Amino acid sequence: MTAGRIICAGLGPGDPDLISVRSDRVVRGARHVAYFRKPGRQGQARRIVEGMLAADAVEHAMEYPVTTELPFDSAEYNDLLSAFYDDWAGRLRDMAQAGEEVVVLCEGDPFFYGSFMHLYVRLKDAVQVDVIPGIPGMVGCWNASGQPITWGDDVLTVLMGTLPEDELVRHMQVSDALAIMKTGRNLPRVRRALETAGRLEDAWLVERGTMPNQRLVRLADVDAADCPYFAIVLVHGHGRRPVAGGEE
Amino acid sequence: MTAGRIICAGLGPGDPDLISVRSDRVVRGARHVAYFRKPGRQGQARRIVEGMLAADAVEHAMEYPVTTELPFDSAEYNDLLSAFYDDWAGRLRDMAQAGEEVVVLCEGDPFFYGSFMHLYVRLKDAVQVDVIPGIPGMVGCWNASGQPITWGDDVLTVLMGTLPEDELVRHMQVSDALAIMKTGRNLPRVRRALETAGRLEDAWLVERGTMPNQRLVRLADVDAADCPYFAIVLVHGHGRRPVAGGEE
Repeated sequence: MTAGRIICAGLGPGDPDLISVRSDRVVRGARHVAYFRKPGRQGQARRIVEGMLAADAVEHAMEYPVTTELPFDSAEYNDLLSAFYDDWAGRLRDMAQAGEEVVVLCEGDPFFYGSFMHLYVRLKDAVQVDVIPGIPGMVGCWNASGQPITWGDDVLTVLMGTLPEDELVRHMQVSDALAIMKTGRNLPRVRRALETAGRLEDAWLVERGTMPNQRLVRLADVDAADCPYFAIVLVHGHGRRPVAGGEE
Repeated sequence: MTAGRIICAGLGPGDPDLISVRSDRVVRGARHVAYFRKPGRQGQARRIVEGMLAADAVEHAMEYPVTTELPFDSAEYNDLLSAFYDDWAGRLRDMAQAGEEVVVLCEGDPFFYGSFMHLYVRLKDAVQVDVIPGIPGMVGCWNASGQPITWGDDVLTVLMGTLPEDELVRHMQVSDALAIMKTGRNLPRVRRALETAGRLEDAWLVERGTMPNQRLVRLADVDAADCPYFAIVLVHGHGRRPVAGGEE
């Protein structure tokens, strides 16, 4: 019996036409396809490959555990999540050891804040795991903004909206370009931090970058109650060196 | 006569199999192909698409001006570079206005420290310019490192090796994950800065990530005289939240 393997296919920012040639080929040829999703949702990774899977592909939906009693940052929820990753890592390992090839779908790039990493660390010493990079979601968002994100010697900092406000402010003050992810309900804090750092006027909110219903709006113009889920905040760098690095 | 346009095709980190489905299609169908290169070199963008161009495609090599008398950061060199971008922007604009479609090849992602941006700002108000995103070179490098670059709430900072040493140190001290580009002859300074910031032991040098001759080595083990040109230095984040954000 030939040993199987796990292939994690990075799918890019959302537009199926932006999947790499290799991931496209792997996804279309897959016999087993696994992907994360919230219960009752299709899931972003599965949505990107709609219409691409073989008719006889077996789908494995890895549904995040939910409970209405536990806050997401509690130790109990973390235990639940850890057991969930252990369980799925075990199932995928068993399939690979039985000779199957399983393609795990991952939006964006799998090694850049992706959930797949939790399976990766559990699987990599037991079975062959190949990871295909993808265009990160933030790259799709700055492409949608129609402006270069960095020039010349610009410093780019990627921040999570979940960070404490004072920490956000400190990074925002010393970086030229910013990409802020996990905004959603953290958006009011992100906005306050940008204002404190004097960067709010240059901030853009990009929702569903590269997808048909993408939206680009100045963050200062967003209603305070509007906290879109799938959005990234961008501040563009302008270059430190006048010509070689970024004239207007 | 139909108006033409400029399409900038992001080509990703180097492996042609990691080009997006859209860029792949556009490159193979191109009648006019333009790309930057140093005089006497093939150029990285052109190298990536080797074997993909149509037999009758017209190639336009945009060769950077060189002079042995001027330092690269002098005002004179910047003037020369600016005139070079003006000249090529004019030629591409004329072709588009004459109804041609010209595909400009760009390694990595065009809006992320790419030379194309200098043409983009000169062209975008005169003719239609479409930009196709690509997987940035640094993403290919952290994929080649076989480890996730960021987990959970990690802060990632992208730095240029050309920055002053004290500025490098300050950013290195406050970020979880680091990607340092434009290393080359700046590598000794980057290394000293990492050492001062206490991060040298965790730093990796990745050369030609995703390409057949890729090389991954601990920066601390690199000989001081070894300054590879096409290399990125990475420090991986380890996650701030124990389970949801990055357990080992």
